Amino acid sequence: MSLSPGHTIPSRGPFTGRTIPELARDLRDGRTTCTALAERALDAAAAMNPVLNAFVTVDAAGALRAARQADDELARGADRGPLHGIPVAVKDLIMVAGLPATMGSRHFAGYVPGEDAECVTRLRRAGAVIVGKTTTHEFAYGPTGDRSASGPSRNPWDPARMSGGSSGGSAVAVAAGIVPLALGTDTGGSVRIPAALCGIAGFKPAYDAIPADGVFPLARSFDHVGVLAGHETDCLIAYRCLAGVEPAGDEEESADAPGRIAWLDTDGTDVWDERVVRAVRAAAGPMDEVRLPEGLAQEARVTYTVIQSCEAASVHAERLSDAPELFGSELLERLRAAAEVPGWRHVRALAARERLAGEFGALFERHDVLALPTVPLTAPPLDRREVEPAGRTIEVRPALLALTCPWNVLGFPALTVPAGTVDGLPVGLQLVCRPGDEPLLFRAAATRLTGT
Amino acid sequence: MSLSPGHTIPSRGPFTGRTIPELARDLRDGRTTCTALAERALDAAAAMNPVLNAFVTVDAAGALRAARQADDELARGADRGPLHGIPVAVKDLIMVAGLPATMGSRHFAGYVPGEDAECVTRLRRAGAVIVGKTTTHEFAYGPTGDRSASGPSRNPWDPARMSGGSSGGSAVAVAAGIVPLALGTDTGGSVRIPAALCGIAGFKPAYDAIPADGVFPLARSFDHVGVLAGHETDCLIAYRCLAGVEPAGDEEESADAPGRIAWLDTDGTDVWDERVVRAVRAAAGPMDEVRLPEGLAQEARVTYTVIQSCEAASVHAERLSDAPELFGSELLERLRAAAEVPGWRHVRALAARERLAGEFGALFERHDVLALPTVPLTAPPLDRREVEPAGRTIEVRPALLALTCPWNVLGFPALTVPAGTVDGLPVGLQLVCRPGDEPLLFRAAATRLTGT
Repeated sequence: MSLSPGHTIPSRGPFTGRTIPELARDLRDGRTTCTALAERALDAAAAMNPVLNAFVTVDAAGALRAARQADDELARGADRGPLHGIPVAVKDLIMVAGLPATMGSRHFAGYVPGEDAECVTRLRRAGAVIVGKTTTHEFAYGPTGDRSASGPSRNPWDPARMSGGSSGGSAVAVAAGIVPLALGTDTGGSVRIPAALCGIAGFKPAYDAIPADGVFPLARSFDHVGVLAGHETDCLIAYRCLAGVEPAGDEEESADAPGRIAWLDTDGTDVWDERVVRAVRAAAGPMDEVRLPEGLAQEARVTYTVIQSCEAASVHAERLSDAPELFGSELLERLRAAAEVPGWRHVRALAARERLAGEFGALFERHDVLALPTVPLTAPPLDRREVEPAGRTIEVRPALLALTCPWNVLGFPALTVPAGTVDGLPVGLQLVCRPGDEPLLFRAAATRLTGT
Repeated sequence: MSLSPGHTIPSRGPFTGRTIPELARDLRDGRTTCTALAERALDAAAAMNPVLNAFVTVDAAGALRAARQADDELARGADRGPLHGIPVAVKDLIMVAGLPATMGSRHFAGYVPGEDAECVTRLRRAGAVIVGKTTTHEFAYGPTGDRSASGPSRNPWDPARMSGGSSGGSAVAVAAGIVPLALGTDTGGSVRIPAALCGIAGFKPAYDAIPADGVFPLARSFDHVGVLAGHETDCLIAYRCLAGVEPAGDEEESADAPGRIAWLDTDGTDVWDERVVRAVRAAAGPMDEVRLPEGLAQEARVTYTVIQSCEAASVHAERLSDAPELFGSELLERLRAAAEVPGWRHVRALAARERLAGEFGALFERHDVLALPTVPLTAPPLDRREVEPAGRTIEVRPALLALTCPWNVLGFPALTVPAGTVDGLPVGLQLVCRPGDEPLLFRAAATRLTGT
């Protein structure tokens, strides 16, 4: 695979280039402690957050307490597995008991939930150490990551550029090496988009594979809890812990049998940064190519937008009528438009979703994994809603979501992995499979990335 | 049961008071023929339709052809069962190959489908003889039955009054004794309302128990195909043929074990004709009483209205924009309002439907069958949208639907049977059960009606 090895992220933190298995070995071999890892994450957050704004809340006391307990447990042989003692950041849309949860919104200023989200409970049970809460786009309703009550999260590759969103802070915290792992949510691409724009791995599992209880909803029928890490293997490890999936024995044994993978040719009529598409295609290497039937991607996007709009407006209807002034102006405008989408369009979108499941499913009859760009452009400057990378005007928001949101409509697992850079900014390769084929997905990623 | 035996329907046709088992016996005993039954139905239609407007299309040639074939089959011992040779009318929303299907609308003037609806295929397979197509409220979107491209169907008890709808013509054809059986559809009460207002039995089975393929949709998630007949036993016979349900052996044997039945106390805050409620309560006889939790019926009605509006607007969106002038003015106004129901309300209504299923389901934990009025008023004069039966103004449309539509939201089987008269007009007792308990429902009806 033709990654551009000359490009490395400018911001480097203590976990840059470190994988969870390496950290786990160091912990068990006595080369470090859970407390030392937590301290390094806290120090890095303190040093880098003023520029990057990855964190809304850093919980130093809670992290050190959890790290000491994790050390005690390891010392007495109570090993909770691969996440034991690993510092983790949690998107500020996911409830952590006792820590503020703002959802990136002034509506929730001062709100402190009393209970952990189910995914946080599972993180703790796996021994992970929660370092803090990461910046989210306001109510997670935006792929840019630059609209939040506490300001935009900034891209470590260029802090004048957007991180992508909505799980922007989680992607930034990992990309800057502040933590090796973060939780995010992904309704239309909110894990994968910032992961791609920040040059890390991000995995959106199958729908409801990781429970969304205790996660503030954006559009419940598309909301997925996902994971972000420097390496896709770390995503797989975290996914297994959070989804309660045991590695299958045969999976390990048949590591020499990668899934049948094909490049999914994206519709040439869309206006994107073709340099990004070409770079990702080249990085993916030689493979079969398949085409989407005419209009199918567009139908998936319209279906996504209609259902997401109606569900989001349902979540926020009372806030919209009672306290509209607490929304940021961009979100207020979007929500008001969403609230006016007529119900009959929602009825049709629900029917379209059924049809799309069949039509996209047919794509997977001859291939196990489809490959495509995660995002067909590089990180735009903050606050920009249009860019002209090659003299053609691209609308930022729909372009960011164009290749990720169809997989939320279908609830299919989708992974993004770094695939080099364009203009010194990272681009991502997206791999998609049907639910149940996750082992093939990660195997395909590993095979591609090592060039074997 | 305290039926008022003194009141009988003024219009009497050849099938008034005749049950399907009686007719079946006469056919097999050689006392009549399928052709003779068809001729009597055709003659009655010719004589009574100018006043009652039950039929949009009478298919004399087709009926006689089918009847002769049915006679031939019986003569050679090919007996198709209880519906063999029975004249049946079919609502003009249900496709019969080669016969016009107007849906009660000018949009479908001249439309002739090429294939039978699945329920019609099953009717023919059971040997029934299709006499014609019956008047439907325009696109089945209305419980009054007095808005149709071919004029209102008229109540045989008083042709100046509405039949109820939307399966008005089917109810009128049966109530007037023109046919012993008719097919209707019921989205919010469209079988049960006209059956009750016309003094006959009507059964809406569980959702999709009779397939709706080939039936023009009103609101697909609530649309049910149902049957209308003079006696509830005939409804059961027809239902079994159309749904492919075999009588269970134990059901016949345990006829001495009626289901646990309770009167469902309706909310006293609603403005209805209380004389009707009292008459039906008295007709039902002594039984347990249960109350709906506060607000539940209202929530079911709102849920019904929102989902029905959005689905109906989805069905008609193109007609609404391309040829609004072909709709009747009342329906045009209703559809335009329906098209503006916002999608976020549809999202909430879908969630409410889930909740309601649980809450209504709990009502059936201690009883198998619930009894309540079918319609809390008698047939209003044609075209009236408000009535004042006791000095209080009642809005006709919501009152007609109030007690029937919740069971469409839940998809529960619901049967209406005659329960006497008020002011010389029939009222109906409605019996409801959970899917699977249909034998108990019909047993409860039989027990009640015979007073045993």
